[in-house]
Amino acid sequence: MAVATDRVKHILSWYSGENVGVKTNLARLMNHGALAGTGKFVILPVDQGFEHGPARSFAPNPPAYDPDYHFQLAIDSGCNAYAAPLGFLEAAADKFAGQVPMILKLNNSDTLAKIAEPVSAVTASVKDAVRLGCVAIGYTIYPGSGARNQMYEPLRDLVREARDVGLPTVVWAYPRGGGLSKDGELAVDVVAYSAHLSCELGAHVVKVKPPSDFIEQAEAKKVFEKCGIPTKTLADRVRHVIQSSFNGKRIVLFSGGETKTTDALLEDVRGIAAGGGFGSIVGRNSFQRPRAEALKLLGDIIDVYRKGS
Amino acid sequence: MAVATDRVKHILSWYSGENVGVKTNLARLMNHGALAGTGKFVILPVDQGFEHGPARSFAPNPPAYDPDYHFQLAIDSGCNAYAAPLGFLEAAADKFAGQVPMILKLNNSDTLAKIAEPVSAVTASVKDAVRLGCVAIGYTIYPGSGARNQMYEPLRDLVREARDVGLPTVVWAYPRGGGLSKDGELAVDVVAYSAHLSCELGAHVVKVKPPSDFIEQAEAKKVFEKCGIPTKTLADRVRHVIQSSFNGKRIVLFSGGETKTTDALLEDVRGIAAGGGFGSIVGRNSFQRPRAEALKLLGDIIDVYRKGS
Amino acid sequence: MAVATDRVKHILSWYSGENVGVKTNLARLMNHGALAGTGKFVILPVDQGFEHGPARSFAPNPPAYDPDYHFQLAIDSGCNAYAAPLGFLEAAADKFAGQVPMILKLNNSDTLAKIAEPVSAVTASVKDAVRLGCVAIGYTIYPGSGARNQMYEPLRDLVREARDVGLPTVVWAYPRGGGLSKDGELAVDVVAYSAHLSCELGAHVVKVKPPSDFIEQAEAKKVFEKCGIPTKTLADRVRHVIQSSFNGKRIVLFSGGETKTTDALLEDVRGIAAGGGFGSIVGRNSFQRPRAEALKLLGDIIDVYRKGS
Amino acid sequence: MAVATDRVKHILSWYSGENVGVKTNLARLMNHGALAGTGKFVILPVDQGFEHGPARSFAPNPPAYDPDYHFQLAIDSGCNAYAAPLGFLEAAADKFAGQVPMILKLNNSDTLAKIAEPVSAVTASVKDAVRLGCVAIGYTIYPGSGARNQMYEPLRDLVREARDVGLPTVVWAYPRGGGLSKDGELAVDVVAYSAHLSCELGAHVVKVKPPSDFIEQAEAKKVFEKCGIPTKTLADRVRHVIQSSFNGKRIVLFSGGETKTTDALLEDVRGIAAGGGFGSIVGRNSFQRPRAEALKLLGDIIDVYRKGS
Amino acid sequence: MAVATDRVKHILSWYSGENVGVKTNLARLMNHGALAGTGKFVILPVDQGFEHGPARSFAPNPPAYDPDYHFQLAIDSGCNAYAAPLGFLEAAADKFAGQVPMILKLNNSDTLAKIAEPVSAVTASVKDAVRLGCVAIGYTIYPGSGARNQMYEPLRDLVREARDVGLPTVVWAYPRGGGLSKDGELAVDVVAYSAHLSCELGAHVVKVKPPSDFIEQAEAKKVFEKCGIPTKTLADRVRHVIQSSFNGKRIVLFSGGETKTTDALLEDVRGIAAGGGFGSIVGRNSFQRPRAEALKLLGDIIDVYRKGS
Repeated sequence: MAVATDRVKHILSWYSGENVGVKTNLARLMNHGALAGTGKFVILPVDQGFEHGPARSFAPNPPAYDPDYHFQLAIDSGCNAYAAPLGFLEAAADKFAGQVPMILKLNNSDTLAKIAEPVSAVTASVKDAVRLGCVAIGYTIYPGSGARNQMYEPLRDLVREARDVGLPTVVWAYPRGGGLSKDGELAVDVVAYSAHLSCELGAHVVKVKPPSDFIEQAEAKKVFEKCGIPTKTLADRVRHVIQSSFNGKRIVLFSGGETKTTDALLEDVRGIAAGGGFGSIVGRNSFQRPRAEALKLLGDIIDVYRKGS
Repeated sequence: MAVATDRVKHILSWYSGENVGVKTNLARLMNHGALAGTGKFVILPVDQGFEHGPARSFAPNPPAYDPDYHFQLAIDSGCNAYAAPLGFLEAAADKFAGQVPMILKLNNSDTLAKIAEPVSAVTASVKDAVRLGCVAIGYTIYPGSGARNQMYEPLRDLVREARDVGLPTVVWAYPRGGGLSKDGELAVDVVAYSAHLSCELGAHVVKVKPPSDFIEQAEAKKVFEKCGIPTKTLADRVRHVIQSSFNGKRIVLFSGGETKTTDALLEDVRGIAAGGGFGSIVGRNSFQRPRAEALKLLGDIIDVYRKGS
Repeated sequence: MAVATDRVKHILSWYSGENVGVKTNLARLMNHGALAGTGKFVILPVDQGFEHGPARSFAPNPPAYDPDYHFQLAIDSGCNAYAAPLGFLEAAADKFAGQVPMILKLNNSDTLAKIAEPVSAVTASVKDAVRLGCVAIGYTIYPGSGARNQMYEPLRDLVREARDVGLPTVVWAYPRGGGLSKDGELAVDVVAYSAHLSCELGAHVVKVKPPSDFIEQAEAKKVFEKCGIPTKTLADRVRHVIQSSFNGKRIVLFSGGETKTTDALLEDVRGIAAGGGFGSIVGRNSFQRPRAEALKLLGDIIDVYRKGS
Repeated sequence: MAVATDRVKHILSWYSGENVGVKTNLARLMNHGALAGTGKFVILPVDQGFEHGPARSFAPNPPAYDPDYHFQLAIDSGCNAYAAPLGFLEAAADKFAGQVPMILKLNNSDTLAKIAEPVSAVTASVKDAVRLGCVAIGYTIYPGSGARNQMYEPLRDLVREARDVGLPTVVWAYPRGGGLSKDGELAVDVVAYSAHLSCELGAHVVKVKPPSDFIEQAEAKKVFEKCGIPTKTLADRVRHVIQSSFNGKRIVLFSGGETKTTDALLEDVRGIAAGGGFGSIVGRNSFQRPRAEALKLLGDIIDVYRKGS
Repeated sequence: MAVATDRVKHILSWYSGENVGVKTNLARLMNHGALAGTGKFVILPVDQGFEHGPARSFAPNPPAYDPDYHFQLAIDSGCNAYAAPLGFLEAAADKFAGQVPMILKLNNSDTLAKIAEPVSAVTASVKDAVRLGCVAIGYTIYPGSGARNQMYEPLRDLVREARDVGLPTVVWAYPRGGGLSKDGELAVDVVAYSAHLSCELGAHVVKVKPPSDFIEQAEAKKVFEKCGIPTKTLADRVRHVIQSSFNGKRIVLFSGGETKTTDALLEDVRGIAAGGGFGSIVGRNSFQRPRAEALKLLGDIIDVYRKGS
């Protein structure tokens, strides 16, 4: 582990109430890979096999069917960490032990069933995360779902159980469900609200999608207008999300979203960095390309954050 | 901690069956801040970020996005205590340790989902309250909700678990749900019933909204009329709520409600004090104003209660 | 505790399989108050604040808003016991410790919400009963409710947990719910069935409402007619309920029902006594009158049972 | 306990994987009463008070209101065992201790409520069975009910818990619910399927109703016809049920069903015996007659099985 | 146990993160029977009695009503293992102890009830598997069911509990429920997705049905077409399923499906072997034939895999 930089120490100061184990693992996340010491993050997540099925996820780049592939990609590209569901991690964790920090995604959803109000299944445990040598647990919430309490309450227990073994919690906050319109899932007010909720629920790190220039809730719209909160550029919107996350005192990461062109993706990353985002979580956009292209892209993203740090 | 006054001793006598830990923490609540020793309370609650979202809560006064802000405001204004959900407390509890009594709100609701019968998620635990050094737990019930048993039964367990570690319980009683009309949520019979229920459920301190001059239930209306229970002034209605709370032998606090003018708010506070209310819980009306104005307002409220004591 | 009379010993013989603690507390109930040693009971229950709200319960006699009031009334009138929910008991149990046997009502319902199939919330625990020095727990079931299993199954566990600490269980059997007509709630077949169910579920003492001369279930009606079971007088119907309760080998008490005239109430009590009822549980009819009148009434009821014993 | 006969030893050999306690209690069932040592059973069950109400159950023979009555009847008639719900057993178990093997029925249903998919309440525990000195637990399942999993899963745990204290499990398999027509509840395919299910779920003894000459499921009908499974006589149908119960390697008992004439009942019993049934469970047909007639009838049934053994 | 072959060692290397107990039992499965050491499997499963009823399952070959029959068939045919629900195993496990590896199927469904979204009942426990000397647990999931989380979450706990006692988990993945068309249950995209899900959920061995040349999900269809995934032959489709199961690093077995001709079945088996399938689970097609024919058929299947290995 690298000597802690001032920036890493500063970020850790926001978690002053936490035990040493949690702070140590947050530091491990910040001190690994090409962005070590900068307080910025690029993380490789591979839960699409579970969420969208194997063909949709891996057929565009068949070597990615193999669990080993993603470990090696995360290591070689200099990512801070690799995040995946139980099966994908345990298939190769032993082989790559100690080479890259792992985040075990504890809950997941597939897309085969019709569900009225979405709620993920908890498919792994904190004990699994410890057994596999992970540095953090990951957990998805769906703010806007009528079943939200069935996700918030287990999260409360998992955060506590993870803390007891020195693991921080990364919350994937994906608004969806009967309370929201389709556009509302990416609306800047809803994304910021979801990030804030995650922080209130005890998340140490939050992951959201880049918000759109749309406001879902009428009551929120009035406030955005009255207080003149800017939402025109992605940087503006990221800034609002960061401010909504305890005034920037929680680590907030942004996803890459659907597969897109390299230019469009890098443009997004620049907006995120400009708005004060702490980093990117890039799944499909990396592992669905040939390995050489993926390494190039991840390197370019890392460069954006390194320059911005 | 100040030497206990006769008034504090008298109030504690209503809780004679409780263990020493619970009485000690009730005393801590009564012996802190500008109203120390009077048996009166002004408390700063900040759960609006969770309940209404960050922009609606903090954009009118952007420093309030920061968890530190509210600790400092509660300390500087001389409030008896500061109440908030898990995340907001743990982000700054270490920094302000020992400077202000904290109440951890154990359950919360957001406003992104459509829910048939309202029920809050339990998002923190008694263990969290102990870990953070709180003096009490807070818990919201929605009398009138078809899901009320899902709130009453966990409350029973939490009151007991909190007692076992010497913590009293503050119940936020907010009538709502399919059993009530919109006006009924503030109706004097319903608010008094909700306060009584809270006491029966084991609450040590109850928080309700100032009741309106409206009676929801036909059976109650007959009794109000037959027995000539006065409901015309806020003081009248507060008096009925206090009487309904074990004949005044439980501490009952009143919220400030929606943001309003300083005059209207102070008028309410005077009514509450005149009716025998034990104090105010003032959230949006304080932290959505610039800090100087908030300090002035909280000072004025404290003055009302100090004079009334 | 008085020396056990032959009658008390005889009643205890019906519970020969129980442990000494349970028998001791059943004896305490029978050896306290004006009816000590007779095997008859008059019990003061005050759960109406929870069930109907404070104004409807206490405004007709305002001193009754105070938890102390009911303890004193139960003591002064010579009742065998005082029964109430958690809050009302814990507000004064310490003050009146050792002066009157207490029954903690473990579950309760309010009347603010709309519920399809009724089920009470369990709002206190056996541990609370022990902590407060109670001699028994009380529990309400609603036979006829589609949610009956949600009441029967927790009752099974509570009876067992209470037995383990030497406490007997009093079951309030109130038929209601989607399986019954409004008249059926008081029908003699339904009340007797409910009393029998309570005994089968392990109740040591059962409390029902005085049954009406109406038969709800067609299958039961055939049997009543064929076997010539008399139902014309209250004494007849009480006799059937007592027989249905293990041939009279379980203690069965009857409520006073809605507020009524003293004469009507005493007439009912005489019918109950004539039919072999073990006593009355008299709530609203006592505490909603001025104290002097309540003492007079309770004295008169006690006289009926004393003469009948 | 009698010396084990070859037949008893043979039956016990089917349970070779069980622990000694379970085998001992199975032996106790087989070595008690008039059929001791024959491997045949006549059992007295009295759960009708719970299931149908007291008047419908006991008014035709009023001494049967008394819990003592049934113990004495089971003893005097030479039944192998007496089965009843918690209350009825605990009211007299102490008085008759050691005189007749008892089976505690752990779950029961009343007929006061309207329930969409039937499921019994678990109203007693394995601990109760041990406390009362029972030799087995009894449990009802409703194959065909949409709530079947809510019965199968607790059964799994109860079988295991009972085994751990050396108690075998008797499963009452009563097909009913939304998946079946009214005739289907007695259909030979459905009854045989239900008996097989009970065995798969771990039952040591199964109790079903005598099946009718009707086939409910179209897929089953094809097989019955193609394979020429005879269903014309009760003996045929009983034979199919026995074969379906692990090829006769599980004890299967048959109920007497609704009250009927002595001749009709004995005719049924002869059919059951001829088909290889292990015995009868006779409730209403015995305790609803005057005691002398009941003793005569039970004696006649015992004779059928003794001759057939 | 045979000396481990290179192939067995290679397969075990895919499970390098597992504890020695789990690997030992995986080795036991691979080192038993006619295919010992080849890394190929033929397994005899008999849960049809539970799933379809006794007559439909066993009447075509009546000796199969007897639990002993299947043990002997699995032993004599040289199967790797015998899989069945609790009752069927415990009826004969003691008699055949040590002669054939057993897999205890922990959950099962009957076909008597109408269920909106399918979910199996958990009818046995890991403790039962240990008690009976099994080498693995079996568990069924229904991807596509609206109740899928009720199956995935218990599976997570069972996998963990089984691992703690050194037992691997075999997952039967049977797509069905409201999210799928009837044809979709066998669609190649859905079967591959279900196999992938099973691996992600922690399955060590997966069992699916042979997939059909049909694609259910529109989003998957686009990818199959764009990436040119071949699906014309069974071998093609099996290859896709194997690739979807962690790039062939999980053992995937295929069922025989409905009873069919010997030729058709062997044709299927050859396709499975050609596509890289690890083996067959053959139930109805074996035990519904006379024993001699079944032994011949299982021998022929074993030959196909032995040649292909």
